Amino acid sequence: MGAGNLCVLSLFLLMGSCLCQYQPNWDSIDSRPVPEWFDQAKLGIFIHWGVFSVPSYGSEWFWWYWQGRKIPDYVSFMTKNFAPGFQYQDFAPKFTAEFFDPKQWMDIFSASGAKYIVLTSKHHEGYTLWGSKYSWNWNAVDVGPKRDLVDEIATALRKNTDLRLGLYHSQFEWFHPLFRADAANNFKTNVFATEKSLPELYELINKYKPELLWSDGDGDAPDQYWNSTGFLAWLYNESPVRETIVTNDRWGKGSICTHGGYYTCTDRYSPGHLLKHKWESCMSIDKRSWGFRREAALSDYLTIEELLKSFIETVSCGGNLLMNVGPTHDGRIVPVFEERLRQMGQWLKVNGEGIYNTTAWRVQNDSVTPGVWYTSKPQDKAVYAFLLSWPDKGSVVLADPIVSASTQVVLVGNKPLKFDVLKPTGLQVYLPTLTPNEMPCSWAWTLRLTGIA
Amino acid sequence: MGAGNLCVLSLFLLMGSCLCQYQPNWDSIDSRPVPEWFDQAKLGIFIHWGVFSVPSYGSEWFWWYWQGRKIPDYVSFMTKNFAPGFQYQDFAPKFTAEFFDPKQWMDIFSASGAKYIVLTSKHHEGYTLWGSKYSWNWNAVDVGPKRDLVDEIATALRKNTDLRLGLYHSQFEWFHPLFRADAANNFKTNVFATEKSLPELYELINKYKPELLWSDGDGDAPDQYWNSTGFLAWLYNESPVRETIVTNDRWGKGSICTHGGYYTCTDRYSPGHLLKHKWESCMSIDKRSWGFRREAALSDYLTIEELLKSFIETVSCGGNLLMNVGPTHDGRIVPVFEERLRQMGQWLKVNGEGIYNTTAWRVQNDSVTPGVWYTSKPQDKAVYAFLLSWPDKGSVVLADPIVSASTQVVLVGNKPLKFDVLKPTGLQVYLPTLTPNEMPCSWAWTLRLTGIA
Amino acid sequence: MGAGNLCVLSLFLLMGSCLCQYQPNWDSIDSRPVPEWFDQAKLGIFIHWGVFSVPSYGSEWFWWYWQGRKIPDYVSFMTKNFAPGFQYQDFAPKFTAEFFDPKQWMDIFSASGAKYIVLTSKHHEGYTLWGSKYSWNWNAVDVGPKRDLVDEIATALRKNTDLRLGLYHSQFEWFHPLFRADAANNFKTNVFATEKSLPELYELINKYKPELLWSDGDGDAPDQYWNSTGFLAWLYNESPVRETIVTNDRWGKGSICTHGGYYTCTDRYSPGHLLKHKWESCMSIDKRSWGFRREAALSDYLTIEELLKSFIETVSCGGNLLMNVGPTHDGRIVPVFEERLRQMGQWLKVNGEGIYNTTAWRVQNDSVTPGVWYTSKPQDKAVYAFLLSWPDKGSVVLADPIVSASTQVVLVGNKPLKFDVLKPTGLQVYLPTLTPNEMPCSWAWTLRLTGIA
Amino acid sequence: MGAGNLCVLSLFLLMGSCLCQYQPNWDSIDSRPVPEWFDQAKLGIFIHWGVFSVPSYGSEWFWWYWQGRKIPDYVSFMTKNFAPGFQYQDFAPKFTAEFFDPKQWMDIFSASGAKYIVLTSKHHEGYTLWGSKYSWNWNAVDVGPKRDLVDEIATALRKNTDLRLGLYHSQFEWFHPLFRADAANNFKTNVFATEKSLPELYELINKYKPELLWSDGDGDAPDQYWNSTGFLAWLYNESPVRETIVTNDRWGKGSICTHGGYYTCTDRYSPGHLLKHKWESCMSIDKRSWGFRREAALSDYLTIEELLKSFIETVSCGGNLLMNVGPTHDGRIVPVFEERLRQMGQWLKVNGEGIYNTTAWRVQNDSVTPGVWYTSKPQDKAVYAFLLSWPDKGSVVLADPIVSASTQVVLVGNKPLKFDVLKPTGLQVYLPTLTPNEMPCSWAWTLRLTGIA
Repeated sequence: MGAGNLCVLSLFLLMGSCLCQYQPNWDSIDSRPVPEWFDQAKLGIFIHWGVFSVPSYGSEWFWWYWQGRKIPDYVSFMTKNFAPGFQYQDFAPKFTAEFFDPKQWMDIFSASGAKYIVLTSKHHEGYTLWGSKYSWNWNAVDVGPKRDLVDEIATALRKNTDLRLGLYHSQFEWFHPLFRADAANNFKTNVFATEKSLPELYELINKYKPELLWSDGDGDAPDQYWNSTGFLAWLYNESPVRETIVTNDRWGKGSICTHGGYYTCTDRYSPGHLLKHKWESCMSIDKRSWGFRREAALSDYLTIEELLKSFIETVSCGGNLLMNVGPTHDGRIVPVFEERLRQMGQWLKVNGEGIYNTTAWRVQNDSVTPGVWYTSKPQDKAVYAFLLSWPDKGSVVLADPIVSASTQVVLVGNKPLKFDVLKPTGLQVYLPTLTPNEMPCSWAWTLRLTGIA
Repeated sequence: MGAGNLCVLSLFLLMGSCLCQYQPNWDSIDSRPVPEWFDQAKLGIFIHWGVFSVPSYGSEWFWWYWQGRKIPDYVSFMTKNFAPGFQYQDFAPKFTAEFFDPKQWMDIFSASGAKYIVLTSKHHEGYTLWGSKYSWNWNAVDVGPKRDLVDEIATALRKNTDLRLGLYHSQFEWFHPLFRADAANNFKTNVFATEKSLPELYELINKYKPELLWSDGDGDAPDQYWNSTGFLAWLYNESPVRETIVTNDRWGKGSICTHGGYYTCTDRYSPGHLLKHKWESCMSIDKRSWGFRREAALSDYLTIEELLKSFIETVSCGGNLLMNVGPTHDGRIVPVFEERLRQMGQWLKVNGEGIYNTTAWRVQNDSVTPGVWYTSKPQDKAVYAFLLSWPDKGSVVLADPIVSASTQVVLVGNKPLKFDVLKPTGLQVYLPTLTPNEMPCSWAWTLRLTGIA
Repeated sequence: MGAGNLCVLSLFLLMGSCLCQYQPNWDSIDSRPVPEWFDQAKLGIFIHWGVFSVPSYGSEWFWWYWQGRKIPDYVSFMTKNFAPGFQYQDFAPKFTAEFFDPKQWMDIFSASGAKYIVLTSKHHEGYTLWGSKYSWNWNAVDVGPKRDLVDEIATALRKNTDLRLGLYHSQFEWFHPLFRADAANNFKTNVFATEKSLPELYELINKYKPELLWSDGDGDAPDQYWNSTGFLAWLYNESPVRETIVTNDRWGKGSICTHGGYYTCTDRYSPGHLLKHKWESCMSIDKRSWGFRREAALSDYLTIEELLKSFIETVSCGGNLLMNVGPTHDGRIVPVFEERLRQMGQWLKVNGEGIYNTTAWRVQNDSVTPGVWYTSKPQDKAVYAFLLSWPDKGSVVLADPIVSASTQVVLVGNKPLKFDVLKPTGLQVYLPTLTPNEMPCSWAWTLRLTGIA
Repeated sequence: MGAGNLCVLSLFLLMGSCLCQYQPNWDSIDSRPVPEWFDQAKLGIFIHWGVFSVPSYGSEWFWWYWQGRKIPDYVSFMTKNFAPGFQYQDFAPKFTAEFFDPKQWMDIFSASGAKYIVLTSKHHEGYTLWGSKYSWNWNAVDVGPKRDLVDEIATALRKNTDLRLGLYHSQFEWFHPLFRADAANNFKTNVFATEKSLPELYELINKYKPELLWSDGDGDAPDQYWNSTGFLAWLYNESPVRETIVTNDRWGKGSICTHGGYYTCTDRYSPGHLLKHKWESCMSIDKRSWGFRREAALSDYLTIEELLKSFIETVSCGGNLLMNVGPTHDGRIVPVFEERLRQMGQWLKVNGEGIYNTTAWRVQNDSVTPGVWYTSKPQDKAVYAFLLSWPDKGSVVLADPIVSASTQVVLVGNKPLKFDVLKPTGLQVYLPTLTPNEMPCSWAWTLRLTGIA
């Protein structure tokens, strides 16, 4: 598994096929551009699934909150509902997935307009959704579903959709005794990283060939402990996915928002302004949890209006949105998630031209009218203005575009609109009066501007 | 427990307090008017909850389909997912209801605009949701939740809402050996009816004092077997709820749509025209099942538009709508149900004046324009026209009202509208151009007409 | 099911076939002699099996001790090992009986030398080991083994052995709500007896035709409540087993040791002297419980020496011994029980001639030598003296036999012995010196005396 | 954990405390004498306990027979009793040990007369009875009992008895994916040995300090793969138990009966003649299984006579007997095992002087009389002859002792015996006539001969 050796070997044997352009240091690693497909994709679906989907209570951090932090609500949930001595591990056999139909998932994912998915192949609980040989008896093939969930999802995705496969992988594991031993040694030993975490990661890449690797969970250990640059050099130079693989920035204490591939910065990241570096905002349709929670009420789920607001703002500021759903222990994506995903897709079917393959414009949100966000599509010489609400007075002021003689404004999905030129810059666009049936879409509307600067 | 004896006794002892006006025969029973509150209520919520909520697969008829009819899909579901010899009864301990919060249910039910609920206190499986002493070890207090679910719901409902309590009760039980023995005797014996079904029903009424009793499941036995008229005479003359109790028409083979209280006729009944007798259409938001089904996809749930269409048609034709939700084995009303119920409530908040306390008009649906249904409110001298879609051309023809000089038309929740008088009758109403925000509601709209005939 | 009516009817229709000699009163019932087979049998096997075999902790009274009396040890066993809210009823699905092989049981029972068995067809928990239609969902066919255990045992017994079938039946049920309601009414109502207990008993007799009915558990209700004399009159006059059925004395408060068939008086009854009325001592190999207890240590089981002592004393005093074993929840008779039963059989194979078909002698135990008990077999003109230990000094004094010229003494299984005649009565018998292999048996030895008075 | 490094280190730092006398090669390892305590002990108790105690069917090889060899009886046991997809791993949470009381075990073990125990700290299933950090989620602390069973047993043993602690440890694990990968590479890789098996073994020794390490299960891999000599050099030179530790001969393919500590050769080894090398016969009271089997009938257990025969023969031939019991999944040693163990102890209480601290005599079994075995105690100038049956004719010929003038023969537990001298050698010993109560013991008897050659 030594990346370095393989590389040297290749240099001698296969000169040209491996240039080994990336060295195991951040300067070199950071110099690799994020593959283009990612910036064009804009929308991904995050899927948090694991043993935590069995209690499906509170959070996917259930184990930690219960036994690490001993939060009373979690402790009492266990005391009330389970026999004394019931352990988190005892949930695993109840992870049954009997209703899991990857084809059905793909139908929903495709319909959402997303271009990639990111599946928690292993969360901090350490349980792997594939049959990892480094996680014997703590993986989905040995205990619980008795199916290789990563494989089934990867296969169905490739067969039925044109989405790309992303895999989330937690470096540390809350309760793994080898990790805890290393941590107790202040990471001067690295048995866990060397014998468990890294071999697993190589296995994962080689076996499932994801195009996105979403690393997480450094466990407060520096990237040196994880040998992250070594791994990434192999990933970028040697791995079977070296051409298209996209990675993020969570590779060790301090690397977030600084090193690696695109930036994720914080969960539910929303900078509100343009970032120079490609970034992604990961967020969850359930406001309080990434894993499925049985107790979530309707009001805990973001509405489609709220989701679109986040999405449009994110895309305008140069980011992607990674929107999370939590499947159930028996393998279902419940209707409230399905509804939101299909609503996204409905909207994108009409308005996708202002989203996919666009880049941030020189202005992100209108300097005069609140709730108006821009994207641009230089290849089409178009700028898109998104209205998060329909103007009540029948017109909207767009203060930032510089109008020319050839300027045209179209309500996407409808027809060209009249407008007045404003001083010093900008224009006032007149929206048509439309009955509900005539509306091109609901929730948010798009204006395509051409011939502007 | 002999109703007859009690009654005679009362006549002698308590002259005046019991007039015993109803005799145990259909002519007498059928002569009792349906208490007024029911006709005014229009919307009820049906709740199918029981042991079938544990497999929560296919249908609340799971047991029968699996072991009675041996439908391959059900047989194979069991074979694939359970140990050999697993019986339906083994589901009961898994009916845990740990998330059941009756107050939360009440919040949802109140928000829906419904005026009553009907809970399956006992479905054909025979499992009682209350601690019936005639159903030892096959009730919610002894096995499963270990809570008296009927009591908790009744109490929460009375404390937190102004809804009325209705209880569904199945006369027969698919697999009860005493019922089967009676059936094998062509109902010449009636051990089951006498020792099980009737005592239970008296217990239920005396203990929980429901205002609606939704009888079902005659098991092909005539009403004489069930002593239905005897029971109803007691219920109407003597029971603690004799003043307000409403019943339906399922009291023995042949009684449906013919005898008893209001008519239910068939499940999902939708006559499309006015009935003389008060009736109710019971239907389920899940198109294919009354009990919760885990495998239901979003497309299996009626949309709010479909629900409102059924509701408006039903009310126009003089019926009530009993809209069903199926809680889960752990006591939740899942978000997709909550969403539909809250959407109903949102709509009713604006349009309820054309629904509650109304009666059918002389015309039910417009003779010219499809998708227009009427109700009337004589006490307000108003007629309501419901538009199931917004007219694309900006106006709608109402062919049936006879206009007068004092005729006024108002878009409920908005403002008075202009109209033209048509020949020979009717009027053409001009709708305003409204932005999405200005719309009084979504999905369907109401016109209030006054000064018409 | 009215026994009286059936009887009157029979008198008119079937004169001769039913003489109805027994009337439903104790004088008449008590006048029936105990069928002879029972007195000849001497040894029976009691089998306590039921839902209590699942916790298999403490006692077959587990449910009552836990939830009726709330004995701390039982409460804490549940608290420590089960989830909150776990009920006794939840044990039933765990009564799996997967190792239950009735043929294997019969092999063990036959080998024990017993002549009848008594199976708890229904203990105070109310759970019936057969598919009673009066105990729906609380019987072995509906919940747990999903097998008719009474039927399987009855069938295997009749096919493979010449033992007789006895069934234990508890009249009352600790927690049956109908019984508790009657009890709360001081048994002025009798819904439970009429609708549950008696129909079940008729069903049991008609279906399985036992030759011994071991009634128990009057629940402090008088025999009138249970209509015991009515039932017994039917049993003795009309039932399919009227010729051979043996019953005991537990038929209502106050009937024990006074009315009915043979007397049982108390559990582990050991009067130590001859009773005029036929009696039976029921006792258990496990000193502290009748149902299987997992926590029982070796010292909790009676040794073969202790068992033989009880057996010999009982037979000498005119009783039968009903020796109890408790099978496990999965249907096994554990080796320690099997060992004791086979040891009994080994001993009886040699010494049975002094046991079976004998009657009490004029003296029960020797008036001089302790540990010597007598039986007699008038048909063979023999008296048997049982020595509970081998005399250390090589001879034993039997003070009570009156020797004659023809007196002979034989060590059963060995050879004639020498003896000296003693004054005023009795004899001193000289035992042979035998190596272990020459011993006819272990644990206790039998002397056959002929020609004595 | 590198033993080599530690050793070198010690040489430099702690000259004298570590002499490193044993080198990591067989010549050196084999040169270490078996510590004396072991030869003196004669009787040990083997304890097979693990996840296999949950199905407790067939054999402790259950997993392999079921899923490795797919033996029909095992496959059908699973099919009949468990849901499809039930895996061996799903048994682990059912390993509850709620009745496990180590003090009670110690009481039984002490009473048996054994001098050491050997507990399966990890069998081929890989599940560790202690909280190994190399076997996360597949050990008794994480899944099942949630107790460190090795620790509890070690602690109770040291506190309550003078027995020595032995631990069984399987090198390979049937289904461990890392082992299977190494095996597929013909053991040219050794990830499993290096990262799993060896670290675990060091952990086990350091943590629990056993005085006997019973290695097993080479999985057809040579000792080099397991680095057995390296480990043993550490164990003998450096480990905390280097002074007293005893090991066996199962250290890699071909090492059995050849290298290491004492020889075990085969299971149930019974050479019938003297071996030069110290050896041990491991055998099980249950003839067909080492793990507890629920379906075992009484006839499947060796009788005390059979056990004593094996024991006496083994000791006569210079071996130890390691007699196995299989505790249940809930932590009990069932009465049939307890009885055998206590019977052993009863016998040893009388006859132990001819067993403990003895050595093989020049003759093992008598050359004339079958069923007579010898041991010798040079320190007491005594030879012991064991009679497996009591001579029916009252005397026994011992052909091999050479009688002298000072020869004395005593029935151990009784008194000196008369004898005649035979030609050419030997003597005829006359046994006393004893009543059962006078017998010093049952099952087998011991003659102490002094003054013989």
